[in-house]
Amino acid sequence: MTLKPGLSTQMVSVAVLGARGYLGRELIRLLLQHPQVESVGVGSQSSAGEPLGKHLPAFRHVPGLTLVPFDHASIRDADAVFMALGHGEAKSLVPTLDEAGTRCIIDLSRDFRTEALAANGWTYGLADLDPVAKGTRRIANPGCYPTASLLATAPALRGRLLADGPIIVDGKSGVSGAGATVRADLHFAETNESVRAYKVLGHDHGPEIRGAAAHLEGRNGNARGIRFTPHLVPQNRGLLATVYAPIQDGVTPEMTKKAYQDAYQDSAFVAVVDEPDTSHVRHSNRAEIAVDVDVENGLMVARGAIDNLVKGGSGQAVQNFNDSFGYPATTGLTAVGGGP
Amino acid sequence: MTLKPGLSTQMVSVAVLGARGYLGRELIRLLLQHPQVESVGVGSQSSAGEPLGKHLPAFRHVPGLTLVPFDHASIRDADAVFMALGHGEAKSLVPTLDEAGTRCIIDLSRDFRTEALAANGWTYGLADLDPVAKGTRRIANPGCYPTASLLATAPALRGRLLADGPIIVDGKSGVSGAGATVRADLHFAETNESVRAYKVLGHDHGPEIRGAAAHLEGRNGNARGIRFTPHLVPQNRGLLATVYAPIQDGVTPEMTKKAYQDAYQDSAFVAVVDEPDTSHVRHSNRAEIAVDVDVENGLMVARGAIDNLVKGGSGQAVQNFNDSFGYPATTGLTAVGGGP
Amino acid sequence: MTLKPGLSTQMVSVAVLGARGYLGRELIRLLLQHPQVESVGVGSQSSAGEPLGKHLPAFRHVPGLTLVPFDHASIRDADAVFMALGHGEAKSLVPTLDEAGTRCIIDLSRDFRTEALAANGWTYGLADLDPVAKGTRRIANPGCYPTASLLATAPALRGRLLADGPIIVDGKSGVSGAGATVRADLHFAETNESVRAYKVLGHDHGPEIRGAAAHLEGRNGNARGIRFTPHLVPQNRGLLATVYAPIQDGVTPEMTKKAYQDAYQDSAFVAVVDEPDTSHVRHSNRAEIAVDVDVENGLMVARGAIDNLVKGGSGQAVQNFNDSFGYPATTGLTAVGGGP
Amino acid sequence: MTLKPGLSTQMVSVAVLGARGYLGRELIRLLLQHPQVESVGVGSQSSAGEPLGKHLPAFRHVPGLTLVPFDHASIRDADAVFMALGHGEAKSLVPTLDEAGTRCIIDLSRDFRTEALAANGWTYGLADLDPVAKGTRRIANPGCYPTASLLATAPALRGRLLADGPIIVDGKSGVSGAGATVRADLHFAETNESVRAYKVLGHDHGPEIRGAAAHLEGRNGNARGIRFTPHLVPQNRGLLATVYAPIQDGVTPEMTKKAYQDAYQDSAFVAVVDEPDTSHVRHSNRAEIAVDVDVENGLMVARGAIDNLVKGGSGQAVQNFNDSFGYPATTGLTAVGGGP
Repeated sequence: MTLKPGLSTQMVSVAVLGARGYLGRELIRLLLQHPQVESVGVGSQSSAGEPLGKHLPAFRHVPGLTLVPFDHASIRDADAVFMALGHGEAKSLVPTLDEAGTRCIIDLSRDFRTEALAANGWTYGLADLDPVAKGTRRIANPGCYPTASLLATAPALRGRLLADGPIIVDGKSGVSGAGATVRADLHFAETNESVRAYKVLGHDHGPEIRGAAAHLEGRNGNARGIRFTPHLVPQNRGLLATVYAPIQDGVTPEMTKKAYQDAYQDSAFVAVVDEPDTSHVRHSNRAEIAVDVDVENGLMVARGAIDNLVKGGSGQAVQNFNDSFGYPATTGLTAVGGGP
Repeated sequence: MTLKPGLSTQMVSVAVLGARGYLGRELIRLLLQHPQVESVGVGSQSSAGEPLGKHLPAFRHVPGLTLVPFDHASIRDADAVFMALGHGEAKSLVPTLDEAGTRCIIDLSRDFRTEALAANGWTYGLADLDPVAKGTRRIANPGCYPTASLLATAPALRGRLLADGPIIVDGKSGVSGAGATVRADLHFAETNESVRAYKVLGHDHGPEIRGAAAHLEGRNGNARGIRFTPHLVPQNRGLLATVYAPIQDGVTPEMTKKAYQDAYQDSAFVAVVDEPDTSHVRHSNRAEIAVDVDVENGLMVARGAIDNLVKGGSGQAVQNFNDSFGYPATTGLTAVGGGP
Repeated sequence: MTLKPGLSTQMVSVAVLGARGYLGRELIRLLLQHPQVESVGVGSQSSAGEPLGKHLPAFRHVPGLTLVPFDHASIRDADAVFMALGHGEAKSLVPTLDEAGTRCIIDLSRDFRTEALAANGWTYGLADLDPVAKGTRRIANPGCYPTASLLATAPALRGRLLADGPIIVDGKSGVSGAGATVRADLHFAETNESVRAYKVLGHDHGPEIRGAAAHLEGRNGNARGIRFTPHLVPQNRGLLATVYAPIQDGVTPEMTKKAYQDAYQDSAFVAVVDEPDTSHVRHSNRAEIAVDVDVENGLMVARGAIDNLVKGGSGQAVQNFNDSFGYPATTGLTAVGGGP
Repeated sequence: MTLKPGLSTQMVSVAVLGARGYLGRELIRLLLQHPQVESVGVGSQSSAGEPLGKHLPAFRHVPGLTLVPFDHASIRDADAVFMALGHGEAKSLVPTLDEAGTRCIIDLSRDFRTEALAANGWTYGLADLDPVAKGTRRIANPGCYPTASLLATAPALRGRLLADGPIIVDGKSGVSGAGATVRADLHFAETNESVRAYKVLGHDHGPEIRGAAAHLEGRNGNARGIRFTPHLVPQNRGLLATVYAPIQDGVTPEMTKKAYQDAYQDSAFVAVVDEPDTSHVRHSNRAEIAVDVDVENGLMVARGAIDNLVKGGSGQAVQNFNDSFGYPATTGLTAVGGGP
């Protein structure tokens, strides 16, 4: 747990569970720079007692980052707890945090997204479209593919620009999206110079996009189909979602572009551009969105580019934290990203 | 011009125009290993008189590879001429080759593809679907994206498995597909760790896929729409096309998979697999195809993985050359590719 | 020029000349986050009048970043001017800045390093070894290779651990170190999957290392020879210098390691580790140093890993700025870097 | 075991043990194209009975490649057996092959290199410097780093151009050199954008270079010290060795360059060039060597670039096989490599 000088009464203590994963370490990076955070507890059940820097050399010089078990005071007493854990782990931990009276829990796994989309005790934190209300206590952070896909589709959904029919989402993600777990197919020499789809018929982000899109379009109970195909591309970070959807008769390219411009003109983090590129948003909480209309085929083609670890995970989680605690959305998220 | 020992009467002389580009150099690599090729002339208008190895160090040790102007005897007298030139250059050269009586011209640019798809003096050389007849004299070699896309879609088109509506092709290509020309956006530090779409509304491979697909489906004069979106991914070689198309009512996943298996069971170069990966076919003339049916959304999802420079260009050109000269299709194309 | 809320009298205005290059844009990123900087002027002679975001999309959302000519008030009146220009350009600009009374000039080119090493009006800003004094007005920022090499060698030089003979520096740099200028050999497909040395006999960082090392060892006028060989490796950022030097008889591995530990134990940015890795320090102002002794061959083997754009350029420049203005060295440089 | 048409009495059967590793699969690729090889047995103790293509999709279409246990007839009866196994495995297998009367064994591990350098029953197969005699029965294939390093140093060693003192070899290798075994530090996202040294004080290629260099220089019993430092760079293939050695007084750059030119002027695979680059030799059995003299520091700087899997392993093994069986050295090794 690292303490910052200049404690003030508005400052809060936070904890990150699952500190060693790619989302966990990115959360810690962001929270250490957050001006309203006075301490960051770092939880890892498997490595409790060890310095985080033993596992992640980039953190070696930061004082106070000793990994603690999940029942440690720095977690139990934290104002906000971020959970970046494997499937099912968050669910089993929440009762303990409830008992501890944790003011705000933000879960980055898929454990509570279904509940959140059903408005069942949790709030789905798609921060640039529906910022959570101040005081929200249980937030399910969206997946990386849903974030890019929904930002790229929302103005069309909300504006009722689409004709009937399924939406096709073709996603391309950098390898950090697959997590830090060791796998034969993620060996550098097997992944470099390789592009491939995966889980074509069964990735759980498909239903997540479907549920969230239904909300955005006001089709609750009658969700539009989502065809979602994720692909792995040989880069560390960066996710591009290319979205195809049938457009209403009479909706022109100009109307569509205007709907997108209007939707995001006051957005803190989302920009409508001509040519989104994952390299433009790397290491930032920003998203680049483009929309085109293929008039000949009656299709809208939208694109959304994000950093899968920031806007697609930890950055959006901090944005949700800001919204819940009443800080400006950009607090701690002002770093300008981009290449090289 | 390099001469091989053991000339036989069946052997032929060939020439490559545009020897310094990525397709040109790959053609030379293949033709130097081809057992029926006795000499390879290498043409470059801008660098005539210089050894190819001055520009491409990998060829320094190969004797006889001096770049010649396009009117040189080693080109004029070649049995087969491969043209790997910029847009419009092939068109201006053909009359000269016609006059020289060149037995077979294979053009790798887009200059003659429209004519070829209209059966107007040229033959469209989609070698794994419609091998050119022995003696074919003018062959337009397909583009890289069309090759992968059409191999991935042909069994459905030919088998009349698709319902009405446009076909969506989401292509992902390695950077060699953009050619060797120097461009600011292809600087290593701008392209590495970057994924982006390009020419979303105007890539000429869209109409090419449209025309060829119409032939395959027997829809001449009534072509089905093609939505084609190319993307650049940070690898040297390798192209994956992901194809989405509405499937007929009553067509099951099993029927679809069987149609694909049947279509390619005797194919020399195309395999139907579960998980295509560009790394499996790198440096080979092979294609990996997969097909799935998203029953819920009534969509076929097909994938085609190729090496964009080989199957998507020079390898298919050699295959067309083999077919035209009556050699077995695999002659000179038996190298096993794949990573690392 | 972007203005920050909460101006205080201690805050300063800065300007970056050469805003579009890789060092320039990294400087702007850092300065926009710097708590003591109230405004950042961005100068580009060739693109004056245009928004920086037109050229660098990552900056599109930042208000106030319009490129200005070098004689613009936001540069002329800046408290500190950072020059990240091509060879010779800084030299021609300094008289104008002198006339404008610029309080502090920090030059990131090689224009003034020779003067600085000769203590001739400029100070060589190797910030982790010799922090410039408060009030220093003219600072020549070290090159990327010299920074890594000298950090890796300094404890041995200062501790007089080395026997006579040249020091060999074998450097490996990511491609951003070559700058953003378009070059055929930096095309992605020519640089990816390529490792090569360059300028083996003539890189200007060799004499720079030589001069600075002589100071560190107290050998002024009798500099030890430096054999410096730079290599390009296929990554965006990250520089590793591997240093070989003859060690004094009787100097043990333990003594050597202790000298390194002692030298950097209080360092804000330099850590002595077992296995330096450029991925540990990416996007940070930190350096990882290791030292080993090859007893059998009487050689010290030292390594230094840095981010070539941050510690090797813009980060060190900000550190020099901090030192000159009397801010704590880590001000604005606390971001935790590292992969992925 | 795959059979080729057109068996002739001069053709031979071969087997590869350790078919699934990176060297094993590259050997199979080369041997399938070798005009004197009639069948290739593929051995894998752990996966016996399975098709090789199950593990390596690139080989799926090749008939006859079923993995067999090491006591299978296709191995026992092979004329030549290539062993590409883990440390110690080759040693335990040789007695069985001896008993089976295997005509030629080529081991790619380090198991017999020490014996070979001591001329103890095995021959060290540094094929471009000391081709094995026809009929050689037991060949220890050199390591990848020693191959590049020794090719880069041999003309200086043989020509007695070097002064006393250790030779420093700074090696940079692509990730395939680390083998196909799954390791956390070789996860794509940990290795991409990372450069690091490893085994600075204990890599077994150091003693191997030392022993072989002593032979080349005629210093048997009095080997010159070798300081060898291997580095991992983020590419699949390609190894560059940069060699630093003290040069004799009076040896000029011209003399040195001439010695190198003379040494390799008739070489089938080694070229002396100005700027070696791993991308020039990728997927080929060639080496690029450069030599420079740093007159000021009295040092020779030599460079050797190879494909670590081909010239650094399987290609050199095939070259040794050719020499042992009396085929021209280039048989089956004529493919032109290079990028992209």
